[in-house]
Amino acid sequence: MLKLTFLGTSAGVPTKQRNVTALAIECLNPYSSGASRQQNKKSRPWVLIDCGEGTQHQLLHTKLSLHQLQAICITHVHGDHCYGLPGLLASAAMSGRTAALTLIAPKAIAKMLEAMRLTTELYLPFAIEFMAIEDILSEPNDEHKGDVTINVDHQHQLVIDIHPLSHRVASYGFGITQTISRRTLNTDKLTADGIPASALWGRLQQGEDVVTEDGRMLSSAEYVDNDSQRTRVVIAGDNDTPECLYAAVVDADLLVHEATYTHAVLNKIQAKNPDFDPMHSSAQLIGKFAQESGLSNLILTHFSARYQSFDNPQSRTPNMAHVRLDAQSAYVGNLWLAADFDQYIVNGAANLVDEEAGSRVQYLGSARAPKK
Amino acid sequence: MLKLTFLGTSAGVPTKQRNVTALAIECLNPYSSGASRQQNKKSRPWVLIDCGEGTQHQLLHTKLSLHQLQAICITHVHGDHCYGLPGLLASAAMSGRTAALTLIAPKAIAKMLEAMRLTTELYLPFAIEFMAIEDILSEPNDEHKGDVTINVDHQHQLVIDIHPLSHRVASYGFGITQTISRRTLNTDKLTADGIPASALWGRLQQGEDVVTEDGRMLSSAEYVDNDSQRTRVVIAGDNDTPECLYAAVVDADLLVHEATYTHAVLNKIQAKNPDFDPMHSSAQLIGKFAQESGLSNLILTHFSARYQSFDNPQSRTPNMAHVRLDAQSAYVGNLWLAADFDQYIVNGAANLVDEEAGSRVQYLGSARAPKK
Repeated sequence: MLKLTFLGTSAGVPTKQRNVTALAIECLNPYSSGASRQQNKKSRPWVLIDCGEGTQHQLLHTKLSLHQLQAICITHVHGDHCYGLPGLLASAAMSGRTAALTLIAPKAIAKMLEAMRLTTELYLPFAIEFMAIEDILSEPNDEHKGDVTINVDHQHQLVIDIHPLSHRVASYGFGITQTISRRTLNTDKLTADGIPASALWGRLQQGEDVVTEDGRMLSSAEYVDNDSQRTRVVIAGDNDTPECLYAAVVDADLLVHEATYTHAVLNKIQAKNPDFDPMHSSAQLIGKFAQESGLSNLILTHFSARYQSFDNPQSRTPNMAHVRLDAQSAYVGNLWLAADFDQYIVNGAANLVDEEAGSRVQYLGSARAPKK
Repeated sequence: MLKLTFLGTSAGVPTKQRNVTALAIECLNPYSSGASRQQNKKSRPWVLIDCGEGTQHQLLHTKLSLHQLQAICITHVHGDHCYGLPGLLASAAMSGRTAALTLIAPKAIAKMLEAMRLTTELYLPFAIEFMAIEDILSEPNDEHKGDVTINVDHQHQLVIDIHPLSHRVASYGFGITQTISRRTLNTDKLTADGIPASALWGRLQQGEDVVTEDGRMLSSAEYVDNDSQRTRVVIAGDNDTPECLYAAVVDADLLVHEATYTHAVLNKIQAKNPDFDPMHSSAQLIGKFAQESGLSNLILTHFSARYQSFDNPQSRTPNMAHVRLDAQSAYVGNLWLAADFDQYIVNGAANLVDEEAGSRVQYLGSARAPKK
């Protein structure tokens, strides 16, 4: 179960209502007990995708803690996706963070940070474990190419896979797969079989086959139910060719993708400046892709500053209603247009609900998509 | 007449109420007519001192336009004073600015910007006229060392002089002197002397001595009143030794200086970490300096995040009332503790009032300080 908090949903420049791009993804564990979930409420492990200027300011209005940040992923080097990085790291340092931080980004981001460190005398009391996307994609690891594993705890894992997109600079999409496993001891069966509670129970639960004092062989598999939950979201960077993500979204519960303009506005911009293609997607383009790839849940973000609030779709002034209609002209699945601080809980299994979430939270349950 | 708008008043990290440091100084011309003042309301020439992360976001809530920005001055390289620079320049570019922009800053800031340009493919369609503070202070120019002149128009000039301070990195204070001159033709005297309105009047006003058709010699000085207004403010960067500014404030109408802590808290921090002196001023230290140097007007800013809103001065929880009392223990002049978006009009001549200003604007009239 993953909880998304949009920290910025504007393209290129901030507006009064929307900051530039950043997205927090919190790792919720639906198996944890009520008490530990209460404890976890204030500061759960999370990952940040992109870090536009002012991301640390947005965080001040959430419960997210820089001490619980596990990794930062940067989709591409454009300023509206990374200029908040030096300040966020400096503030993490000032707040006393000492734990190493994983940074998954294009190589140029490491160069940028190094230059900032040197020129602005920035001292970070924690290590940055930098993983260059170019290296991840080119160097096969033990399992397969192109992913990074983050162990939240011994039963809770995130695997981040990376997908090249098409934009004016090298841009990437991140597939994030959360897997949480649980072993439940079948105590009813143990009792029925006349095996009293003892240290043996713990060993069985850990997966060990054991021999009782009276010489009976007990197989762990017989007394332990293995259960696991998998949730997968795909978060794309700037991209004019949604088809780059065909493989990535095959079994995704959700795609988050930019929709900078409506298709009509995109065409107008391309016609007006034949020498300068912004290389962004329209809402219609991405809607068409989501429909064709059978996605159940689609969240659009990264809107041009020309689109302010929702207005009459008949209005000639560009507004968010036009963006929604543009996407709906091609897509019939669940569609959301993200606003800053919108939260979504993505749930790979339909029967799990997070009792904590407030009324502003959208639930995306049972998101496996049947092909339409 | 200068109008200050505080865009950030927090030290080190942003808080919910205060952004990190930035200060806008608008050039008001009290001689301009009502009509042109109306025209100028939305976008007057201005200068930015420091540019912490999120400065461009703060500007969205003001009338200040990036097209009217004349110069940016950076006091020192610490991130909370300069991390907003790349994003602000990128947004100026996206808003269509093409006019060159003066940047007065330590050399390292040029290196930082160059690294950002290269690593993040930032393209600026306007020139940055970079003036390294180290060069300004070491290379004498025609008039004297250590200043830069900005001509707002032919009768309106800013001179920015620079003063080294004492901090963990090289830090500077900026003295900003605005001079506006006006020539008024004495039409009553011309009429009384039997000189009818003609092109001669214009030549006299321009300072030319002329001969009338009937052969009379007219001296410009006799028919033209020269008037000028001078306003001077001093804006300091981070600094633990206010005395560095003795020469700078001699004839200043206002000093804006950091007061990161109260004196008690500063002492406690220094005692706790003998190896790490933050090298900031306390409110008391700067109050003492302002009192000794006879300053009439003092604005404190750059407050530690531990000080939130005003509270009972008897409260043990650090709050802004403590900072005010700490300064007042040494200073009896006009004292303000800046908050984000506070505006102050600084007026070198007492008899001029800006009719535009709203109720949130503080007036600092007739600010020449008698020695106390």
